[in-house]
Amino acid sequence: MNILIIGGGGVVGQKLATALARKGRLRGKDIARITLADIVSPAPVNAPFSIETKVCDIADATSVAETIAQDDDVIYLLAAIVSGQAETDFDLGMNVNLHGPLNVLERCRALGTCPVVVFTSSIAVYGGEVTDPLGDHSNLNPQTSYGGQKAIAEILINDYTRKGFIDGRGFRLPTISVRPGKANLAASSFMSSILREPLNGVEAVCPVDDNFLHYYLSPRKCAENLVIGAEVAASDLGMNRCMQMPGRTWSIRQLIDAMTAVAGPEPAKLIRWEDQPEVRRIVSGWKWDIHADKAERLGLGADDSFEDNVRYYLEEDK
Amino acid sequence: MNILIIGGGGVVGQKLATALARKGRLRGKDIARITLADIVSPAPVNAPFSIETKVCDIADATSVAETIAQDDDVIYLLAAIVSGQAETDFDLGMNVNLHGPLNVLERCRALGTCPVVVFTSSIAVYGGEVTDPLGDHSNLNPQTSYGGQKAIAEILINDYTRKGFIDGRGFRLPTISVRPGKANLAASSFMSSILREPLNGVEAVCPVDDNFLHYYLSPRKCAENLVIGAEVAASDLGMNRCMQMPGRTWSIRQLIDAMTAVAGPEPAKLIRWEDQPEVRRIVSGWKWDIHADKAERLGLGADDSFEDNVRYYLEEDK
Repeated sequence: MNILIIGGGGVVGQKLATALARKGRLRGKDIARITLADIVSPAPVNAPFSIETKVCDIADATSVAETIAQDDDVIYLLAAIVSGQAETDFDLGMNVNLHGPLNVLERCRALGTCPVVVFTSSIAVYGGEVTDPLGDHSNLNPQTSYGGQKAIAEILINDYTRKGFIDGRGFRLPTISVRPGKANLAASSFMSSILREPLNGVEAVCPVDDNFLHYYLSPRKCAENLVIGAEVAASDLGMNRCMQMPGRTWSIRQLIDAMTAVAGPEPAKLIRWEDQPEVRRIVSGWKWDIHADKAERLGLGADDSFEDNVRYYLEEDK
Repeated sequence: MNILIIGGGGVVGQKLATALARKGRLRGKDIARITLADIVSPAPVNAPFSIETKVCDIADATSVAETIAQDDDVIYLLAAIVSGQAETDFDLGMNVNLHGPLNVLERCRALGTCPVVVFTSSIAVYGGEVTDPLGDHSNLNPQTSYGGQKAIAEILINDYTRKGFIDGRGFRLPTISVRPGKANLAASSFMSSILREPLNGVEAVCPVDDNFLHYYLSPRKCAENLVIGAEVAASDLGMNRCMQMPGRTWSIRQLIDAMTAVAGPEPAKLIRWEDQPEVRRIVSGWKWDIHADKAERLGLGADDSFEDNVRYYLEEDK
């Protein structure tokens, strides 16, 4: 079992590689090799088998062809330009988030090996006037370029699967929180930083009201779900290979209360409230009344409470 | 008012050009020029203003750049590889039905003129396990490459509109019947030929049972709807620029009965019933319990009865 993680240098890619290294097996076979590929050389993880690293620009078909090997059995496609950046740099978003998946799928098709491809879509595919609640049968009417590009990739994952070029699976990730590391250009970045920075004694800005509702999952649970996502039998996936990954809906106030319950009252005092219209405009178009019925039936799950999300961060990442 | 019809040589393109020539005006302005563009030089139509013809391969960005002029105000994007052919020649379908619209949109973006773009999608975007009835808020889960490519183009039309590069509108065409001319590689081709050929005294094959249900519109009404589609105010289109074009659901038996009511009992005797598994496999994945609420609110409409479809064919096309 050889596994390639494209986007293997990111938060989810590293958590996933670590989870796979600990597990040692996937789809009933011992893992022989994990290749971590990313736009800059990814950090290797500790594993009782071979770990390789590669530099890959998924917007470049030649680079993709050099990255995906004939003997890669499972390919995780996590790499993307995040929402805020895809909005400000339209070409970059199109090249990485639309032509990138297309390059990966075309390479798989050319190899003729029908690998399992696990793609990370996003709740940013939801939007517009589609009525709540949102679930597996809701129209995808994204209101950002990032969401549009993810929705397009979902359709491609389905069609390349139907044609027998890949065995694809796509999961719409909830917003991942508490995300370790630094703030990024995702419009959702504050949904981690208002917890992460205060837990490290640093001030953070919250650009929306404390009653703002959103749909969350911890990095740990996300990695576990992506492992399950590769293991699910193709015959159980039905006629849409892409679905919502389970998460839970919380208000900003509930996030902060969970942080206080786990870490005491001091961190919350480091949150500064400051309206940011551009961030608010993007995130207010996002949906939160989201249901992941199909994925739950297939064995994927959400965190029990946001206190877990805070605890995982303190245990693994702080 | 300069109008470009890409796919202007096809049945719908020619009907549309004729309807516009008769009307003489669009979006409150006199029409100065219609350009008909297609993969082979289109037949001109009679008009009281300038009619130009161009050869354009939408899969080729250079050809698209030469076709779309700075002073084109309204662009109809009708050109496509039909369902059956997109299924058997995957690369051709991808190049024309996915990269084609992308080339058109990128050309519009480069011009910076924000033209009105009217795109013809298809009911082939529906499919899978999405529950009936289908409408503006249903998930698009196509089960053909053609349907997937149309669904992707819808998302692009929306995003390029949202970014201000075009003023886009997309309409999911019902199956057009009675379509004049010859049978083509569309899996739906028989839905015209079982009427058209017998009305011309020629035998035709029906590859499905007479209780097969489907969603239809006449070419005349389709052209009228596309004119309205360009005229609708942008502010009335909401957050999804793509919607179902109205049609009506009939069984094959109802189609044949309508033909008999209009043209007497002889034509129906020329239909030969012969199961064709590959056609049946494709069309049985298509949906028919379809509702076009949004387009109806915007003033688009369907035929009153299938007898009208038969009469229009006899009046205009036979």
